Amino acid sequence: MVRWKPAAHERLQAAALDLFANHGFEETTVAEIALAVGLTERTFYRYFSDKREVIFAGQEQFVEIFLRGIADAASDATPLQVVTGAVLGAGQFFPEDRRSFSRQRHIVISSTPELQERELLKMAALAGAIAAALVARGVAEPAATLAAESGVTVFRISFGQWIAEGAESSLAQIEKEVFRELGALSASAL
Amino acid sequence: MVRWKPAAHERLQAAALDLFANHGFEETTVAEIALAVGLTERTFYRYFSDKREVIFAGQEQFVEIFLRGIADAASDATPLQVVTGAVLGAGQFFPEDRRSFSRQRHIVISSTPELQERELLKMAALAGAIAAALVARGVAEPAATLAAESGVTVFRISFGQWIAEGAESSLAQIEKEVFRELGALSASAL
Repeated sequence: MVRWKPAAHERLQAAALDLFANHGFEETTVAEIALAVGLTERTFYRYFSDKREVIFAGQEQFVEIFLRGIADAASDATPLQVVTGAVLGAGQFFPEDRRSFSRQRHIVISSTPELQERELLKMAALAGAIAAALVARGVAEPAATLAAESGVTVFRISFGQWIAEGAESSLAQIEKEVFRELGALSASAL
Repeated sequence: MVRWKPAAHERLQAAALDLFANHGFEETTVAEIALAVGLTERTFYRYFSDKREVIFAGQEQFVEIFLRGIADAASDATPLQVVTGAVLGAGQFFPEDRRSFSRQRHIVISSTPELQERELLKMAALAGAIAAALVARGVAEPAATLAAESGVTVFRISFGQWIAEGAESSLAQIEKEVFRELGALSASAL
Protein backbone atom coordinates (compact mmCIF):
# COMPACT_ATOMS: atom_id res chain seq x y z
CA MET A 1 0.00 0.00 0.00
CA VAL A 2 2.57 2.54 1.13
CA ARG A 3 4.37 2.72 -2.20
CA TRP A 4 1.15 3.82 -3.91
CA LYS A 5 0.58 6.80 -1.65
CA PRO A 6 2.35 9.44 -3.73
CA ALA A 7 0.59 8.22 -6.87
CA ALA A 8 -2.81 8.41 -5.17
CA HIS A 9 -1.98 11.91 -3.92
CA GLU A 10 -1.11 13.08 -7.41
CA ARG A 11 -4.08 11.36 -9.03
CA LEU A 12 -6.47 12.92 -6.52
CA GLN A 13 -4.91 16.32 -7.11
CA ALA A 14 -5.14 16.05 -10.89
CA ALA A 15 -8.73 14.81 -10.77
CA ALA A 16 -9.73 17.55 -8.33
CA LEU A 17 -8.23 20.29 -10.49
CA ASP A 18 -10.06 18.94 -13.54
CA LEU A 19 -13.36 18.90 -11.67
CA PHE A 20 -12.79 22.36 -10.15
CA ALA A 21 -11.93 23.78 -13.57
CA ASN A 22 -14.89 22.20 -15.34
CA HIS A 23 -17.64 22.26 -12.71
CA GLY A 24 -16.47 24.97 -10.34
CA PHE A 25 -14.71 24.72 -6.97
CA GLU A 26 -17.83 25.24 -4.85
CA GLU A 27 -19.86 22.72 -6.82
CA THR A 28 -17.33 19.88 -6.65
CA THR A 29 -17.61 17.46 -3.71
CA VAL A 30 -14.88 15.36 -2.14
CA ALA A 31 -16.92 12.26 -3.02
CA GLU A 32 -16.80 13.22 -6.71
CA ILE A 33 -13.04 13.77 -6.59
CA ALA A 34 -12.45 10.38 -4.97
CA LEU A 35 -14.85 8.63 -7.35
CA ALA A 36 -13.07 10.12 -10.38
CA VAL A 37 -9.94 8.13 -9.52
CA GLY A 38 -11.69 5.06 -8.12
CA LEU A 39 -10.93 5.83 -4.47
CA THR A 40 -13.12 6.43 -1.43
CA GLU A 41 -13.80 9.70 0.36
CA ARG A 42 -11.97 8.19 3.32
CA THR A 43 -8.84 7.75 1.23
CA PHE A 44 -9.09 11.38 0.08
CA TYR A 45 -9.02 12.52 3.70
CA ARG A 46 -5.86 10.52 4.29
CA TYR A 47 -4.09 12.95 1.97
CA PHE A 48 -6.00 16.23 2.30
CA SER A 49 -7.88 17.77 5.22
CA ASP A 50 -10.42 19.32 2.83
CA LYS A 51 -10.78 20.19 -0.85
CA ARG A 52 -9.11 23.57 -0.38
CA GLU A 53 -5.98 21.70 0.68
CA VAL A 54 -5.78 20.11 -2.76
CA ILE A 55 -5.04 23.60 -4.08
CA PHE A 56 -2.76 24.70 -1.25
CA ALA A 57 -0.86 21.52 -0.41
CA GLY A 58 2.88 22.07 -0.02
CA GLN A 59 2.75 25.61 1.42
CA GLU A 60 5.46 24.82 3.97
CA GLN A 61 7.82 23.36 1.36
CA PHE A 62 7.08 26.39 -0.83
CA VAL A 63 8.22 28.81 1.87
CA GLU A 64 11.13 26.47 2.68
CA ILE A 65 12.60 26.87 -0.83
CA PHE A 66 12.86 30.62 -0.37
CA LEU A 67 14.32 30.30 3.11
CA ARG A 68 16.92 27.82 1.86
CA GLY A 69 17.91 30.33 -0.82
CA ILE A 70 18.35 32.99 1.86
CA ALA A 71 20.43 30.65 4.02
CA ASP A 72 22.67 29.92 1.02
CA ALA A 73 23.35 33.58 0.20
CA ALA A 74 26.87 35.00 0.52
CA SER A 75 27.39 36.73 3.85
CA ASP A 76 28.25 40.04 2.16
CA ALA A 77 25.23 40.06 -0.16
CA THR A 78 22.93 43.10 0.10
CA PRO A 79 19.31 42.48 1.23
CA LEU A 80 17.98 42.76 -2.32
CA GLN A 81 20.72 40.45 -3.65
CA VAL A 82 19.78 37.88 -1.00
CA VAL A 83 16.12 38.09 -1.96
CA THR A 84 16.88 38.02 -5.68
CA GLY A 85 18.89 34.82 -5.22
CA ALA A 86 16.09 33.22 -3.20
CA VAL A 87 13.43 34.14 -5.76
CA LEU A 88 15.52 32.87 -8.69
CA GLY A 89 16.18 29.66 -6.75
CA ALA A 90 12.47 29.21 -6.13
CA GLY A 91 11.95 29.73 -9.87
CA GLN A 92 13.95 26.59 -10.54
CA PHE A 93 11.54 24.69 -8.29
CA PHE A 94 8.87 25.19 -10.97
CA PRO A 95 10.21 23.31 -13.99
CA GLU A 96 8.51 23.07 -17.36
CA ASP A 97 6.46 20.00 -16.41
CA ARG A 98 4.73 21.91 -13.59
CA ARG A 99 3.60 24.76 -15.83
CA SER A 100 0.38 23.15 -17.03
CA PHE A 101 -0.64 22.14 -13.50
CA SER A 102 0.17 25.62 -12.19
CA ARG A 103 -1.84 27.21 -14.98
CA GLN A 104 -4.91 25.10 -14.26
CA ARG A 105 -4.54 25.77 -10.54
CA HIS A 106 -4.39 29.50 -11.23
CA ILE A 107 -7.58 29.39 -13.31
CA VAL A 108 -9.42 27.69 -10.45
CA ILE A 109 -8.12 30.21 -7.91
CA SER A 110 -8.99 33.18 -10.13
CA SER A 111 -12.60 32.09 -10.39
CA THR A 112 -13.11 31.52 -6.65
CA PRO A 113 -12.94 34.54 -4.28
CA GLU A 114 -12.36 32.32 -1.24
CA LEU A 115 -9.30 30.78 -2.90
CA GLN A 116 -8.03 34.16 -4.10
CA GLU A 117 -8.06 35.35 -0.49
CA ARG A 118 -6.22 32.26 0.65
CA GLU A 119 -3.60 32.77 -2.08
CA LEU A 120 -3.10 36.39 -0.97
CA LEU A 121 -2.64 35.26 2.62
CA LYS A 122 -0.16 32.65 1.44
CA MET A 123 1.91 35.32 -0.33
CA ALA A 124 1.70 37.60 2.71
CA ALA A 125 2.94 34.74 4.91
CA LEU A 126 5.80 34.16 2.46
CA ALA A 127 6.81 37.82 2.60
CA GLY A 128 6.66 37.74 6.40
CA ALA A 129 8.85 34.62 6.53
CA ILE A 130 11.42 36.15 4.15
CA ALA A 131 11.53 39.40 6.12
CA ALA A 132 12.04 37.46 9.37
CA ALA A 133 14.87 35.45 7.78
CA LEU A 134 16.53 38.69 6.65
CA VAL A 135 16.22 40.20 10.12
CA ALA A 136 17.79 37.01 11.52
CA ARG A 137 20.73 37.66 9.14
CA GLY A 138 21.13 41.10 10.65
CA VAL A 139 19.24 43.17 8.07
CA ALA A 140 17.54 46.14 9.76
CA GLU A 141 13.93 47.15 9.30
CA PRO A 142 12.43 48.58 7.15
CA ALA A 143 15.00 47.27 4.64
CA ALA A 144 14.09 43.65 5.46
CA THR A 145 10.38 44.12 4.81
CA LEU A 146 10.96 46.30 1.73
CA ALA A 147 13.28 43.68 0.22
CA ALA A 148 10.97 40.78 1.15
CA GLU A 149 7.86 42.44 -0.27
CA SER A 150 9.71 43.44 -3.45
CA GLY A 151 10.87 39.85 -3.93
CA VAL A 152 7.40 38.40 -3.43
CA THR A 153 5.93 40.95 -5.83
CA VAL A 154 8.52 40.00 -8.47
CA PHE A 155 7.74 36.33 -7.87
CA ARG A 156 3.97 36.86 -8.21
CA ILE A 157 4.27 38.92 -11.38
CA SER A 158 6.73 36.44 -12.90
CA PHE A 159 4.60 33.47 -11.97
CA GLY A 160 1.61 35.11 -13.65
CA GLN A 161 3.62 35.62 -16.85
CA TRP A 162 5.02 32.08 -16.70
CA ILE A 163 1.57 30.46 -16.64
CA ALA A 164 0.11 32.79 -19.27
CA GLU A 165 -1.13 31.01 -22.39
CA GLY A 166 1.69 30.76 -24.93
CA ALA A 167 4.50 31.73 -22.51
CA GLU A 168 7.76 29.91 -23.27
CA SER A 169 10.50 31.42 -21.09
CA SER A 170 11.40 29.61 -17.89
CA LEU A 171 10.19 31.09 -14.61
CA ALA A 172 13.76 32.02 -13.61
CA GLN A 173 14.28 33.84 -16.95
CA ILE A 174 11.09 35.82 -16.45
CA GLU A 175 12.06 36.62 -12.86
CA LYS A 176 15.39 38.04 -14.01
CA GLU A 177 13.57 40.28 -16.46
CA VAL A 178 11.10 41.50 -13.79
CA PHE A 179 13.96 42.19 -11.35
CA ARG A 180 15.53 44.30 -14.11
CA GLU A 181 12.24 46.20 -14.44
CA LEU A 182 12.25 46.76 -10.69
CA GLY A 183 15.76 48.18 -10.91
CA ALA A 184 14.81 50.46 -13.80
CA LEU A 185 11.75 51.67 -11.91
CA SER A 186 13.74 52.56 -8.81
CA ALA A 187 16.44 54.30 -10.85
CA SER A 188 13.79 56.90 -11.74
CA ALA A 189 12.68 57.53 -8.15
CA LEU A 190 12.06 60.85 -6.32
CA MET B 1 -32.11 64.05 14.07
CA VAL B 2 -30.07 64.28 10.90
CA ARG B 3 -27.53 66.74 12.26
CA TRP B 4 -26.57 64.26 14.98
CA LYS B 5 -25.73 61.43 12.61
CA PRO B 6 -21.99 62.07 12.25
CA ALA B 7 -21.63 62.43 16.00
CA ALA B 8 -23.43 59.13 16.60
CA HIS B 9 -21.21 57.46 14.00
CA GLU B 10 -18.07 58.68 15.73
CA ARG B 11 -19.34 57.88 19.22
CA LEU B 12 -20.26 54.34 18.15
CA GLN B 13 -16.87 53.88 16.56
CA ALA B 14 -14.98 55.15 19.62
CA ALA B 15 -17.05 53.01 22.01
CA ALA B 16 -16.64 49.93 19.80
CA LEU B 17 -12.86 50.34 19.66
CA ASP B 18 -12.69 50.68 23.43
CA LEU B 19 -14.75 47.54 23.92
CA PHE B 20 -12.80 45.60 21.28
CA ALA B 21 -9.51 46.63 22.87
CA ASN B 22 -10.56 45.82 26.42
CA HIS B 23 -12.82 42.78 26.00
CA GLY B 24 -11.76 41.40 22.61
CA PHE B 25 -13.36 41.77 19.20
CA GLU B 26 -15.07 38.37 19.19
CA GLU B 27 -16.47 38.83 22.68
CA THR B 28 -18.01 42.25 22.07
CA THR B 29 -21.63 42.35 20.86
CA VAL B 30 -23.34 45.05 18.84
CA ALA B 31 -25.81 45.46 21.72
CA GLU B 32 -22.94 46.28 24.08
CA ILE B 33 -21.50 48.84 21.67
CA ALA B 34 -24.85 50.57 21.28
CA LEU B 35 -25.53 50.47 25.01
CA ALA B 36 -22.14 52.08 25.75
CA VAL B 37 -23.25 55.28 24.01
CA GLY B 38 -26.92 55.12 25.01
CA LEU B 39 -28.17 54.05 21.59
CA THR B 40 -30.08 51.01 20.34
CA GLU B 41 -28.78 48.12 18.27
CA ARG B 42 -31.10 49.33 15.56
CA THR B 43 -29.34 52.68 15.48
CA PHE B 44 -25.97 50.91 15.25
CA TYR B 45 -27.14 49.13 12.11
CA ARG B 46 -28.09 52.44 10.56
CA TYR B 47 -24.37 53.28 10.44
CA PHE B 48 -22.61 49.93 10.18
CA SER B 49 -23.63 46.67 8.52
CA ASP B 50 -21.82 44.68 11.24
CA LYS B 51 -19.16 45.16 13.91
CA ARG B 52 -16.34 44.47 11.44
CA GLU B 53 -17.48 47.53 9.51
CA VAL B 54 -16.68 49.70 12.51
CA ILE B 55 -13.04 48.82 11.89
CA PHE B 56 -13.13 49.02 8.10
CA ALA B 57 -15.52 51.91 7.48
CA GLY B 58 -14.24 54.35 4.88
CA GLN B 59 -12.35 51.87 2.67
CA GLU B 60 -13.62 53.52 -0.51
CA GLN B 61 -12.59 56.99 0.60
CA PHE B 62 -9.22 55.54 1.63
CA VAL B 63 -8.57 54.19 -1.86
CA GLU B 64 -9.96 57.41 -3.32
CA ILE B 65 -7.25 59.53 -1.65
CA PHE B 66 -4.54 57.55 -3.42
CA LEU B 67 -6.34 57.66 -6.75
CA ARG B 68 -6.77 61.41 -6.45
CA GLY B 69 -3.03 61.71 -5.88
CA ILE B 70 -2.39 59.73 -9.04
CA ALA B 71 -4.81 61.86 -11.03
CA ASP B 72 -3.01 65.00 -9.81
CA ALA B 73 0.47 63.81 -10.84
CA ALA B 74 2.40 65.65 -13.56
CA SER B 75 1.99 63.98 -16.94
CA ASP B 76 5.74 63.41 -17.30
CA ALA B 77 6.20 61.88 -13.84
CA THR B 78 7.72 58.37 -13.75
CA PRO B 79 5.55 55.54 -12.33
CA LEU B 80 7.39 55.57 -9.01
CA GLN B 81 7.18 59.38 -8.80
CA VAL B 82 3.42 59.16 -9.38
CA VAL B 83 3.06 56.55 -6.64
CA THR B 84 5.34 58.43 -4.26
CA GLY B 85 3.21 61.55 -4.66
CA ALA B 86 0.02 59.58 -4.04
CA VAL B 87 1.39 57.89 -0.91
CA LEU B 88 2.69 61.18 0.52
CA GLY B 89 -0.68 62.77 -0.23
CA ALA B 90 -2.45 59.95 1.59
CA GLY B 91 -0.08 60.52 4.49
CA GLN B 92 -1.51 64.00 4.93
CA PHE B 93 -4.95 62.43 5.27
CA PHE B 94 -3.84 60.99 8.62
CA PRO B 95 -3.18 64.08 10.76
CA GLU B 96 -1.93 64.03 14.34
CA ASP B 97 -5.42 63.77 15.83
CA ARG B 98 -6.06 60.46 14.06
CA ARG B 99 -2.93 58.82 15.41
CA SER B 100 -4.42 57.60 18.69
CA PHE B 101 -7.52 56.18 16.96
CA SER B 102 -5.34 54.48 14.33
CA ARG B 103 -3.11 53.01 17.03
CA GLN B 104 -6.04 51.55 18.94
CA ARG B 105 -7.55 50.21 15.73
CA HIS B 106 -4.26 48.53 14.89
CA ILE B 107 -4.07 46.83 18.29
CA VAL B 108 -7.55 45.39 17.78
CA ILE B 109 -6.68 44.17 14.28
CA SER B 110 -3.39 42.62 15.42
CA SER B 111 -5.12 40.52 18.04
CA THR B 112 -7.85 39.18 15.72
CA PRO B 113 -6.82 36.87 12.81
CA GLU B 114 -10.09 37.51 10.96
CA LEU B 115 -9.43 41.25 11.00
CA GLN B 116 -5.78 40.81 10.02
CA GLU B 117 -6.93 38.92 6.93
CA ARG B 118 -9.41 41.63 6.09
CA GLU B 119 -6.70 44.28 6.47
CA LEU B 120 -4.40 42.34 4.13
CA LEU B 121 -7.18 42.09 1.56
CA LYS B 122 -7.80 45.82 1.91
CA MET B 123 -4.14 46.56 1.16
CA ALA B 124 -4.16 44.13 -1.78
CA ALA B 125 -7.25 45.89 -3.15
CA LEU B 126 -5.48 49.23 -2.74
CA ALA B 127 -2.44 47.98 -4.68
CA GLY B 128 -4.72 46.64 -7.42
CA ALA B 129 -6.56 49.97 -7.69
CA ILE B 130 -3.28 51.92 -7.88
CA ALA B 131 -1.85 49.58 -10.53
CA ALA B 132 -5.05 49.92 -12.59
CA ALA B 133 -4.87 53.72 -12.33
CA LEU B 134 -1.25 53.64 -13.52
CA VAL B 135 -2.15 51.40 -16.46
CA ALA B 136 -4.95 53.85 -17.31
CA ARG B 137 -2.24 56.59 -17.42
CA GLY B 138 -0.33 54.52 -19.97
CA VAL B 139 2.17 52.79 -17.66
CA ALA B 140 2.99 49.31 -18.96
CA GLU B 141 3.00 46.14 -16.89
CA PRO B 142 4.88 44.94 -14.92
CA ALA B 143 6.05 48.48 -14.07
CA ALA B 144 2.53 49.45 -12.94
CA THR B 145 2.17 46.56 -10.49
CA LEU B 146 5.77 46.88 -9.26
CA ALA B 147 5.29 50.59 -8.55
CA ALA B 148 1.86 50.07 -6.96
CA GLU B 149 3.03 47.26 -4.67
CA SER B 150 6.14 49.22 -3.69
CA GLY B 151 4.01 52.21 -2.79
CA VAL B 152 1.59 50.16 -0.69
CA THR B 153 4.50 48.46 1.09
CA VAL B 154 6.01 51.85 1.91
CA PHE B 155 2.62 53.04 3.16
CA ARG B 156 2.13 49.97 5.37
CA ILE B 157 5.60 50.16 6.88
CA SER B 158 5.29 53.91 7.46
CA PHE B 159 1.85 53.56 8.99
CA GLY B 160 3.20 50.93 11.39
CA GLN B 161 5.99 53.30 12.46
CA TRP B 162 3.58 56.23 12.76
CA ILE B 163 1.30 54.44 15.23
CA ALA B 164 4.18 52.93 17.24
CA GLU B 165 4.23 53.98 20.89
CA GLY B 166 6.30 57.15 21.26
CA ALA B 167 6.48 57.98 17.53
CA GLU B 168 6.46 61.73 16.86
CA SER B 169 7.18 62.29 13.15
CA SER B 170 4.23 62.88 10.85
CA LEU B 171 3.14 60.03 8.59
CA ALA B 172 4.33 61.95 5.51
CA GLN B 173 7.77 62.50 7.08
CA ILE B 174 8.09 58.79 7.86
CA GLU B 175 6.94 57.90 4.35
CA LYS B 176 9.66 60.08 2.82
CA GLU B 177 12.24 58.30 4.94
CA VAL B 178 10.96 54.83 3.93
CA PHE B 179 10.92 55.83 0.25
CA ARG B 180 14.56 56.84 0.68
CA GLU B 181 15.28 53.39 2.17
CA LEU B 182 13.57 51.83 -0.85
CA GLY B 183 15.80 53.84 -3.17
CA ALA B 184 18.93 52.85 -1.23
CA LEU B 185 17.89 49.20 -1.32
CA SER B 186 17.38 49.21 -5.08
CA ALA B 187 20.66 51.02 -5.70
CA SER B 188 22.40 47.88 -4.41
CA ALA B 189 20.49 45.48 -6.68
CA LEU B 190 21.79 42.55 -8.78
